[in-house]
Formats: sequence, C-alpha cells, structure tokens
Amino acid sequence: MTLEQLAALLAQAEFHKVLKVEPLSADPTGKVTLFLRFDSAYTIFKAKGNYHGGVIASLVDVAGAMACSVVQGHPTPTANLRVDYLKTPANCDLFADGEARRVGKTIGVADVTIRDSEGAVYALGRGTFIPADPNPAIFRN
Amino acid sequence: MTLEQLAALLAQAEFHKVLKVEPLSADPTGKVTLFLRFDSAYTIFKAKGNYHGGVIASLVDVAGAMACSVVQGHPTPTANLRVDYLKTPANCDLFADGEARRVGKTIGVADVTIRDSEGAVYALGRGTFIPADPNPAIFRN
Amino acid sequence: MTLEQLAALLAQAEFHKVLKVEPLSADPTGKVTLFLRFDSAYTIFKAKGNYHGGVIASLVDVAGAMACSVVQGHPTPTANLRVDYLKTPANCDLFADGEARRVGKTIGVADVTIRDSEGAVYALGRGTFIPADPNPAIFRN
Amino acid sequence: MTLEQLAALLAQAEFHKVLKVEPLSADPTGKVTLFLRFDSAYTIFKAKGNYHGGVIASLVDVAGAMACSVVQGHPTPTANLRVDYLKTPANCDLFADGEARRVGKTIGVADVTIRDSEGAVYALGRGTFIPADPNPAIFRN
Repeated sequence: MTLEQLAALLAQAEFHKVLKVEPLSADPTGKVTLFLRFDSAYTIFKAKGNYHGGVIASLVDVAGAMACSVVQGHPTPTANLRVDYLKTPANCDLFADGEARRVGKTIGVADVTIRDSEGAVYALGRGTFIPADPNPAIFRN
Repeated sequence: MTLEQLAALLAQAEFHKVLKVEPLSADPTGKVTLFLRFDSAYTIFKAKGNYHGGVIASLVDVAGAMACSVVQGHPTPTANLRVDYLKTPANCDLFADGEARRVGKTIGVADVTIRDSEGAVYALGRGTFIPADPNPAIFRN
Repeated sequence: MTLEQLAALLAQAEFHKVLKVEPLSADPTGKVTLFLRFDSAYTIFKAKGNYHGGVIASLVDVAGAMACSVVQGHPTPTANLRVDYLKTPANCDLFADGEARRVGKTIGVADVTIRDSEGAVYALGRGTFIPADPNPAIFRN
Repeated sequence: MTLEQLAALLAQAEFHKVLKVEPLSADPTGKVTLFLRFDSAYTIFKAKGNYHGGVIASLVDVAGAMACSVVQGHPTPTANLRVDYLKTPANCDLFADGEARRVGKTIGVADVTIRDSEGAVYALGRGTFIPADPNPAIFRN
C-alpha cells in the first residue's frame, strides 16, 4: 500500500473527520507514521490542553491496523488492542509510529509508539489485527 | 460518587462534546453504566453505520475509569487499557457497563462490557486505573 | 471435546509434569474448569506459600486455550494472553475457570478466572486463541 | 541493583528451581537480560522441543519485574502482564531482554523481548509493576 492509498483509506472513515489523522509515511515492510494536529476537541480540559485517553487509544488502533495494512495491501481489522499511558501529552501535535512485528496468515501483531515532534514518548500500544480477508466486510461501503 | 457527580465529571471533558457519553447509573461499590447514542460521526462508513474501533476503545477508557472513580469518590486516571473486539456494532446505541474488580491503594482494575440495548456484546475491555490522588493533576482545570 | 479428551490433551504436555493441572469439567459450549493442587514448587517462598506469577500466567494460558479447544474439538494455540493479578494466593489449591467469549473462524477470545475453592478471586485472564487448524503444528508430536 | 543482587533475588524463588532462569546483565537504568537454558521439562512435546506458552509467560513476568527492580533497587511485584506469541521456539536456549519504559511513583511499565542467541524474536511482553514498597509483602520470607 502506498502513502497515497493509505491516505485514501484513512480519508474514507467518517470518524476521521473528528480524529483528523494524516499519514506521513508508509513503508510496505510494515511501518507507518501518522500525524495528529493538536485540537482542543481532543482534550479533557481546553485550558490545560491535556489529551483524552480515548484519543490516544484511537491513534493506537489506527496506526497498528495501518502498519499491518501496508504489508497486506488491504485493510486489516483490529482484533484487540492495548495501550499503556506513560504520561499525558498536552498542547502538542502527536505522531503515531506503527510497526508490524509479524504478519502471518491468521493474525498480525503491531506495535505503536505515541510521541511528539521531539521524540518524547507518551504511550505505548500493541494490538492484534486480522490480515486474512482482502476485502473485510467492515471496510466495504 | 453519585450519578449527578459522575455526570458532572463527564460533562467537564472537552472530548465528551464529541463522544457524547452519558451516565445511566453509578453504584458506589464500583459499577457504572454509560450510554452512547448512535451518531454517524462515530462510524467508519456512514452508509454502513459501523462503529470505529477508537470509539469503542474510548468508551472502555471512560467506563473503566468511572467504575473505579465511583468507588474512590474522585477521578482515577487510566494507566492502561485493553480492548477485545468481538463483533462490530452498527447503527445502534451502545451501553458500556463498567465494573471495578479490585480497587487497592496503588491501582484499581476494572472490566468493561460494550453491548447494545438487547444485551448483544460487541467488545470486552479491561484496564488499570490509578486511585491514589484525590485530585489528579490531569483532572485539575 | 469431552472431559476425557481434555484430560488426554493436557496429559500430553511435558510441562504439565511440572504444572500438574487437572481438568475438572469441560462443557462444549466453551467452559472448562482446571484444578491445580498446591505445591511449594509453585511458590516464591516455600515458607510463605505465595504463588509465583508465572504459575498463574501458565494457568491462564492453559485454561483459556482449553475453553476454545472444547468448542472446536481440537487444540487452539495461544496468540496472546493477559493477566491481571488482584492478590497473591498462598498455600491453597487453585481453580481456573475458562470461558470462551467468542470463537470465530479466525480467532477465539476466552476469559479466565483464577480462584480458590471458596471463590476468592486472585487473578483475571484473557487471551486470543487460534481455532483454525484442526491439527496445529505445535500440537503434532 | 547489581547483577549479584539480581542473581540473589532470583535464586530466592522456589519456582526458579523449576524455571532455572539466570541473570546475564543488569543495568540500573532499567535493562536486564535473563537466560533460560533449554530443558525438555519446558516443552509441550519432548520430541518436538517446542516451548509451552506458560514458560514464555513466566519469563516475561520475571524479566519485566526485574527491569523495574534494578531501577528501584528492590523487588517490584507484577500488577499485570501481556504476552504476544509470534512463533514457537523449539530446542533452543532463550534470552529475555527486559526494559523499563517508565518507572514512576505508582507504577512502572516494562517491555520484554523473548529471543534466541541469534536474535530471532519469539514473543513480545509488556507489563505493569508496582515500585512503591521497598519491601513488598510478597517478597518477605
């Protein structure tokens, strides 16, 4: 999957009009970097600018799935995900680096690091994704 | 924490203007039920009405934290969460039943079930929450 | 898979000569109960009788896999597992209640509760298991 | 915690007479490497030499806890752990590289990689550990 195809896939999802995640890079060996520009809509407190945990979890979901998707060349639905929150990002853009650790016939496993532009790490994610179906039902419009 | 206090806490978060989650019940022994009315903004495809995984994960985050918060009487930030997606809900309102399984001095553990009004289960969540601080920094405006 | 077949499957594993886990019940809808008689070999401190976390995790692995196996009628290898330790059991026999929450074509999800004979819960487990292959390579002697 | 102290701590546990894990290195910034010499007692099938998932999970437990312990200078009990099995190791010694990703006042988070001597990765682990108590009850003999 090329960066253009990844961008097109991300643009499809209705929820991404809220979570305005943009792909920065896509490596078919299983690496993607996504970008989320800070928006106070993502926070707990507007004045504080601290990100809501659900926004971080959503980024992990998308970056993990995309890391497997670029290997497969088609969407790979999420079977499960886990997020460890190390510290709360505030008032900054976020980057999600997704890396497929293994994509087999049945499942894929991907890691996700949530960081800022200077490399400070805010959360660690990992998940299981389903690579099997080239045209997963949940991605058929 | 009473239902009114829980509702007030949820209403504080900026992101909950997007994820319009409402509390239905709060039991100080550690049980809460949250409600999310279907909105096409939460979907992958508007026409299909299928929920985005990030929305489900956000519900798990909030319901798990709230299940521990009602025990403690104050917000309990999320340390980690995990979500297992069993099937994709579509075109339906969602309920998140959170249940604290143990709230100790250092950490709390809560389970979350994501279901519809008829009891069909779509996702299972579990997480670790930090009960210690009666006034957690990330919840101070 | 009947209780006898489950017992035979468990008896095969070399590691179960160390972790002497015994099946107590097997329901083909996806429920199993396993039994582990206390042995000081499972502890951190013999004098204290407190179970090592690895023993608990091993029980979760086996009970989760078996809960999916009884549905499928054949072994279902573990893709991932998670264990939340609520309190440390000591000097008591343990029971592992495994319950398949969903077994689909590609993956199964099972919950495991680690408890004693009086129902005190010590740990919560959950995992993903691979149901696809009726004769998984790792179970072929 | 020095390598000698880590070795002494590991030698205390009764279960480590079964799971004969040895420390190879300990860096007080939060890195440890543990070694497990192959033993057919750890397998599913002796003839096949394939490791039981519980043995891998036990290694993740110990290596994650030790990665946080070397930072703290005292044992850090496991709150939860997760293991993703990528492929099954067989007939080989195993190494567990533990790395603390963050050790705060309340919890620590550590990553564990299970590999062989040539760097082939078999499993990925992550867990939450409790750093607070310099003399945790479960480690008091």
